[in-house]
Amino acid sequence: MKKIVFLRHGESTWNKENRFTGWTDVDLTPKGLSEAAAAGSLLKKEGFVFDRAYTSYLKRAVKTLDIVLDKMDLDWIPVEKSWRLNEKHYGSLQGLNKAETAAKYGEAQVKIWRRSFDVAPAPLRPDDKRNPAFDQRYNAVPPRELPLTESLKDCIARALPYWQGAIWPALREGQRLLVAAHGNSLRGIIKYLKNIPDAEISALNLPTGVPYVFEFDADYKLVKDYFLGNQEEIKKQMQSVADQGKK
Amino acid sequence: MKKIVFLRHGESTWNKENRFTGWTDVDLTPKGLSEAAAAGSLLKKEGFVFDRAYTSYLKRAVKTLDIVLDKMDLDWIPVEKSWRLNEKHYGSLQGLNKAETAAKYGEAQVKIWRRSFDVAPAPLRPDDKRNPAFDQRYNAVPPRELPLTESLKDCIARALPYWQGAIWPALREGQRLLVAAHGNSLRGIIKYLKNIPDAEISALNLPTGVPYVFEFDADYKLVKDYFLGNQEEIKKQMQSVADQGKK
Repeated sequence: MKKIVFLRHGESTWNKENRFTGWTDVDLTPKGLSEAAAAGSLLKKEGFVFDRAYTSYLKRAVKTLDIVLDKMDLDWIPVEKSWRLNEKHYGSLQGLNKAETAAKYGEAQVKIWRRSFDVAPAPLRPDDKRNPAFDQRYNAVPPRELPLTESLKDCIARALPYWQGAIWPALREGQRLLVAAHGNSLRGIIKYLKNIPDAEISALNLPTGVPYVFEFDADYKLVKDYFLGNQEEIKKQMQSVADQGKK
Repeated sequence: MKKIVFLRHGESTWNKENRFTGWTDVDLTPKGLSEAAAAGSLLKKEGFVFDRAYTSYLKRAVKTLDIVLDKMDLDWIPVEKSWRLNEKHYGSLQGLNKAETAAKYGEAQVKIWRRSFDVAPAPLRPDDKRNPAFDQRYNAVPPRELPLTESLKDCIARALPYWQGAIWPALREGQRLLVAAHGNSLRGIIKYLKNIPDAEISALNLPTGVPYVFEFDADYKLVKDYFLGNQEEIKKQMQSVADQGKK
């Protein structure tokens, strides 16, 4: 049985403040650090070992991964970072409080911005200092690929080439892999693996810091997928993520 | 001016207990964590930026690097890990207290084991569970290259191919590099860069957690090298490292 584990980063400062984060490089909260440590301890207890790990260019995912690997005594394994695993870019919403935005524009509009498949929030102006083109970490990315906003569809379109070009081939080589990333970049990969329709993917609310295991048979067909941990607690966390856009 | 920065990991639990550590994968102490954070803050304050970083397979170096990069908001840069940057393997001395070993075998003998250029401590027996051949992290290393003990000469012989094959070419491409590693693997690289004779290299006692900057001219000739930070404090730290093998 071949397995891969996906992990949404632990709680960030802007998760806690209920702000749209996107590509803003915010840190983990103390709770987020604990969630990452708990995920690492759980994976170790359940006998998981990884040969290689992947993460985004954003510190909340990188640090979650570092903490998990340290708890597993796997600090030494190779880690690959890619901007393609970054969170969905939230355009001009980045920094705004989700509940305040709902009070101002209405819950229905916020739900569209958060969860529609192909509607993107209003873009950053090109001269906005948050434009990724001004951030040295994206210097190697062709400028036309750098977003000023993204729909989930856009986010998936730039995440999947990394799945197909880097992660999936390593899985096919028999490597045991861990991917520590974000709610929407992981949604994209999971949508693809489970053939979830465009209209249904928004209902998948990944909890922070909970390992999500995918198992494949010898022909690399997906056999099953499940969250590790207390299933009742996980359901509550998923509902809480879904409720963030309410007033 | 081209620069590269070397950094010996922060204090580890066995540094603190004054034990021979070698390839034993011990953690940082709280002081070691603070040293790493201070090194990162200092590098940031002094205007350093890195494009890429290198470290060993040992968590005290990996974690030092992770903390430094986090303090510099450079969590996202590529990090390459190599067993060739590991500490010198201390053979059957690994785990023994340096002062107790000095009391038992004499300071002169311990100085030979710690600081002679080409005398290695007694090797581990091949069936010792500490033999690196039993550790999955070294599965990809040809067994004949895995040591049961090392002299400084041996350590340099396996560290330099990584310097020459990976780090130096990246420096020549213009990348700004940070190497977080160990007292002896760094001694090897520094000996090579500064042409330090075999008989003199043992006198170089790198303090933990202090950035050591090497500057090269346009033709990649070494121009100068210096430690960042309070020079009086650094001298004291270097003397303290030298004194560890005393009774």
